[in-house]
Amino acid sequence: MSNEPPPGGVLRRGLSTGRLEALSDGVYAIAITLLVLDIAVPPHAGDHLLRSLAHQWPSYLAYVVSFSTIGAIWLGHNAITEYLERTDAAFVRLNLLLLLVVSFLPFPTRLLAGYISYDSSERVAVTFYGISLLLASTLLMVLWRYAVRAHLVRPDAADEEIQLLTERLTPGLAGYLVLIISGLFLPILAVIGYLAIALYYIIPFRRLSAGFLPRRRKAR
Amino acid sequence: MSNEPPPGGVLRRGLSTGRLEALSDGVYAIAITLLVLDIAVPPHAGDHLLRSLAHQWPSYLAYVVSFSTIGAIWLGHNAITEYLERTDAAFVRLNLLLLLVVSFLPFPTRLLAGYISYDSSERVAVTFYGISLLLASTLLMVLWRYAVRAHLVRPDAADEEIQLLTERLTPGLAGYLVLIISGLFLPILAVIGYLAIALYYIIPFRRLSAGFLPRRRKAR
Amino acid sequence: MSNEPPPGGVLRRGLSTGRLEALSDGVYAIAITLLVLDIAVPPHAGDHLLRSLAHQWPSYLAYVVSFSTIGAIWLGHNAITEYLERTDAAFVRLNLLLLLVVSFLPFPTRLLAGYISYDSSERVAVTFYGISLLLASTLLMVLWRYAVRAHLVRPDAADEEIQLLTERLTPGLAGYLVLIISGLFLPILAVIGYLAIALYYIIPFRRLSAGFLPRRRKAR
Amino acid sequence: MSNEPPPGGVLRRGLSTGRLEALSDGVYAIAITLLVLDIAVPPHAGDHLLRSLAHQWPSYLAYVVSFSTIGAIWLGHNAITEYLERTDAAFVRLNLLLLLVVSFLPFPTRLLAGYISYDSSERVAVTFYGISLLLASTLLMVLWRYAVRAHLVRPDAADEEIQLLTERLTPGLAGYLVLIISGLFLPILAVIGYLAIALYYIIPFRRLSAGFLPRRRKAR
Repeated sequence: MSNEPPPGGVLRRGLSTGRLEALSDGVYAIAITLLVLDIAVPPHAGDHLLRSLAHQWPSYLAYVVSFSTIGAIWLGHNAITEYLERTDAAFVRLNLLLLLVVSFLPFPTRLLAGYISYDSSERVAVTFYGISLLLASTLLMVLWRYAVRAHLVRPDAADEEIQLLTERLTPGLAGYLVLIISGLFLPILAVIGYLAIALYYIIPFRRLSAGFLPRRRKAR
Repeated sequence: MSNEPPPGGVLRRGLSTGRLEALSDGVYAIAITLLVLDIAVPPHAGDHLLRSLAHQWPSYLAYVVSFSTIGAIWLGHNAITEYLERTDAAFVRLNLLLLLVVSFLPFPTRLLAGYISYDSSERVAVTFYGISLLLASTLLMVLWRYAVRAHLVRPDAADEEIQLLTERLTPGLAGYLVLIISGLFLPILAVIGYLAIALYYIIPFRRLSAGFLPRRRKAR
Repeated sequence: MSNEPPPGGVLRRGLSTGRLEALSDGVYAIAITLLVLDIAVPPHAGDHLLRSLAHQWPSYLAYVVSFSTIGAIWLGHNAITEYLERTDAAFVRLNLLLLLVVSFLPFPTRLLAGYISYDSSERVAVTFYGISLLLASTLLMVLWRYAVRAHLVRPDAADEEIQLLTERLTPGLAGYLVLIISGLFLPILAVIGYLAIALYYIIPFRRLSAGFLPRRRKAR
Repeated sequence: MSNEPPPGGVLRRGLSTGRLEALSDGVYAIAITLLVLDIAVPPHAGDHLLRSLAHQWPSYLAYVVSFSTIGAIWLGHNAITEYLERTDAAFVRLNLLLLLVVSFLPFPTRLLAGYISYDSSERVAVTFYGISLLLASTLLMVLWRYAVRAHLVRPDAADEEIQLLTERLTPGLAGYLVLIISGLFLPILAVIGYLAIALYYIIPFRRLSAGFLPRRRKAR
């Protein structure tokens, strides 16, 4: 069966969803894990290692915020590919664009960690960081909207489900815009806000799936 | 068959076990491989390269302990996903939390390698390291207990097997607690202890599976 | 069925296309993500962070060009494996050679980013960069031509499709040669040209697949 | 069918060959790609960039030798998993040990690149490098011999094939021993020898498979 060509074309698996997911998961995993390289071991701390470690709180904060955000984007990406029946070339290209931004995120993270306590530079670093997050979220939403519009979504997906996922992916954008602007005045608040958005993105997917997943009989 | 929606919902593969495993394996592989970046080539060693290399023993020790620990966590994670029938959104989120700690481990490893021979700082580094390992182990156990409680485990898994895996994942926690405290007095001993726990974790899984795996007829 | 040996040999999956794709996707994902490590956080920028960031434009340009090129090579590689029925040992070895060049690309990228504004060195860096890209493209084409010649391609693939893919993979080579030479006189122009080739590679694959993909009935 | 438990045990896929391969491929891909980080961009080369780049030949040599060796180990590992019917816990643990050495290789590579032109240190670096390669090869052979002894190999694999793969994996060990010793007198020669072994490993697998792969009718 799997050796028979699909009618009308030769490509066995459409445009290789498998490799698109493999490349994407690789990029997410690496971007997430590279973040730790930006936490520096305090050099020559002598007797003050504990204090030096505590003094590095911006690095830990940046690590957690970026990890959560990339995790949230991965969850969203995951939800999108769950609904896909096939991909097309434009989808693959948009996905590459999303990966470009995701694999770029370690840089603004490092910038944030390095300049969060430096008065005027802090504003630049936080804004740069926020714009990067906004870009990633926007591309994720564009990816989903494109998939819906190009009829890449599985035909048995109910319209309400598609609508629900669209709604879940949208509010972050407004949130990022508000935080980017408020970050010009209260940088640290904006960072907390970015963490809040990531956690918000992470949490609703539970409810999303809770409504969709078949209630299997509990065998034990 | 694979194109038919499961009854009661649209998600083909539950919440994508495939991508959860792909992301996790990616993070484990990268965390394990990044450890080597922390072993520095001695600069300008001149004629004393051998001595300089020998002098770096804390780096090698930290490499082996962290590699073994991440390997042990991977084995445990592997055993858990073997028993899973499906995942749910909370499981995926807990898994992200575990990955956050796993991908963080290269940092305490570097800290340990850098400060293990510096009297007072040594204690801080070893304690920081121990707490990170404790956190990872705790999250692994929480992940498994959640899977059991949320009925994500395959219905044909015998209760004794589930019980056995739970028991295997538990004792490390007490071990880490004891070692963290004794590490305040004898740091190097604690590090040896962490290695012992990792090896303990790695070894029992053999016995675990030895009892479970079907004894196939040996064809050769 | 899957436990039965294929007639005439024992290897279940031919020479493991799965692992060849897994290794390749891993290398692509890592090469793409390592690029960001080469964008340095400006040290001690004080009040001039924004200016320092803007001053780093060669790093961003190099990042985008290399990301696009690796993305384009990945798309081409993807198209090739789509048409493969099986691999053989020479194909696997050629693929390793391609991966050697792909995983090398972060180095010329760093070189480019570091020397693009330094008069005479700029020429060396841009030429070195161009030759690396040319090498990668050449190997991709060799890989495909070998696959066709060694009858690794699926027998149901139409000759026109194979011809079309061959044509798509070829023009870049001439483009790289022209740009490498013109880069000796106008380095920055060559870099823009490399980006153009990458985008050219990325875009035609849409048309390529548009013609091939079965027009499924649009269910929604 | 795939939802039915195998008789006599609950573990669906034996001890998860899929995740063992995924982790391994991840480690190989990352180890291979990290090598490039050790090629430094010459700082402040001014007008002498070309000369500075040429002066870095030890880095390129080390890159190619290590890449080829890891590639050869990956091919061997690949051949082993091709013949596996299932894994057991000891196999998984041995595999982790092999991965420990593979992911360690970037360190001796860096050492080699850094000290190959420094008289007395060169000997230390080359010997350290050789021992690491020897260790990796030994573990690969141990892995295979264990798989054969523990009856993990597919029952339909002919004895001659198993014998042949054993023979292919063995000679490298003697080669490494000879080269490690001769490297004490002629370091650079030993490095060339290591490259030769890697290429030897890579090439015979073609013949190996040429004999085994079913001769399919050539459809085009």
